Amino acid sequence: MPKFYFEDFSPGWKAAFGPRRITREEMIEFASQFDPQPMHLDEEAAAKTMLGGLGASGWHTCAFVMRMIADGFLLDAASMGAPGIDEVKWMRPVRPGDSLTVRGSVLSTRRSQSKPDRGFVTLHWEVFNQRGEMVMTLTCPQMLLRRNAGATA
Amino acid sequence: MPKFYFEDFSPGWKAAFGPRRITREEMIEFASQFDPQPMHLDEEAAAKTMLGGLGASGWHTCAFVMRMIADGFLLDAASMGAPGIDEVKWMRPVRPGDSLTVRGSVLSTRRSQSKPDRGFVTLHWEVFNQRGEMVMTLTCPQMLLRRNAGATA
Repeated sequence: MPKFYFEDFSPGWKAAFGPRRITREEMIEFASQFDPQPMHLDEEAAAKTMLGGLGASGWHTCAFVMRMIADGFLLDAASMGAPGIDEVKWMRPVRPGDSLTVRGSVLSTRRSQSKPDRGFVTLHWEVFNQRGEMVMTLTCPQMLLRRNAGATA
Repeated sequence: MPKFYFEDFSPGWKAAFGPRRITREEMIEFASQFDPQPMHLDEEAAAKTMLGGLGASGWHTCAFVMRMIADGFLLDAASMGAPGIDEVKWMRPVRPGDSLTVRGSVLSTRRSQSKPDRGFVTLHWEVFNQRGEMVMTLTCPQMLLRRNAGATA
């Protein structure tokens, strides 16, 4: 049984997950498969790019943070998935060996008009490295079942 | 030497890549690592979710499409990376064995005010399955060097 339902989230809700370390090997593995630009793949080539050295693919940072969010609360929530991503900003490179911390807050909530058993929660996530520098922000709507939805729907 | 620079993109630019097939094995592998929600991980559990069967993590679809975009033109472009993602919409599940096609267009371009050697191109991508159903849209700014930037900067 899920611990968290739509009603458990409201503006003021906050959470923090991590730190979790991202390794050079997993950066290169992700980049090889999904985003083989030189700055994500090879130290020597990356040194000549605007990143000035190897940095994770932004999509890798997103996926890495998704896993932290899943482990942090989403796998314990009555999640019905997400309709998309509202916005991502990549502010600073994520470097091999960085330890990432994620801080989340609820921006807004709304009950579904068409389906009374569920609602949407818009979550904003800030991602920091071990020096406290913000490396990414992520704003995502999340669809969640209402508590006792079966009884009240 | 890159083939494509900032000047090569303007509203009206269009591209299409694929089809490329996404397998059950790679869906489950991605989900195991980054997004272990039941609907992305296990057929039996997925059948009871709103997806009604196994579907790719939306982040996997993003990463898969990133690779199609990289192979399609970005690895031949004077890319300086991207500052983020403007928006993603996940419309329909991506199923095991689906063959995805990507169609891109330029929404807008602007030269950097602070750095005359580069500019930003906002690209909009529509992703279709083999039945022609739109499964995802993705809007991303892309930073690119201007042609002969070294000479004119």
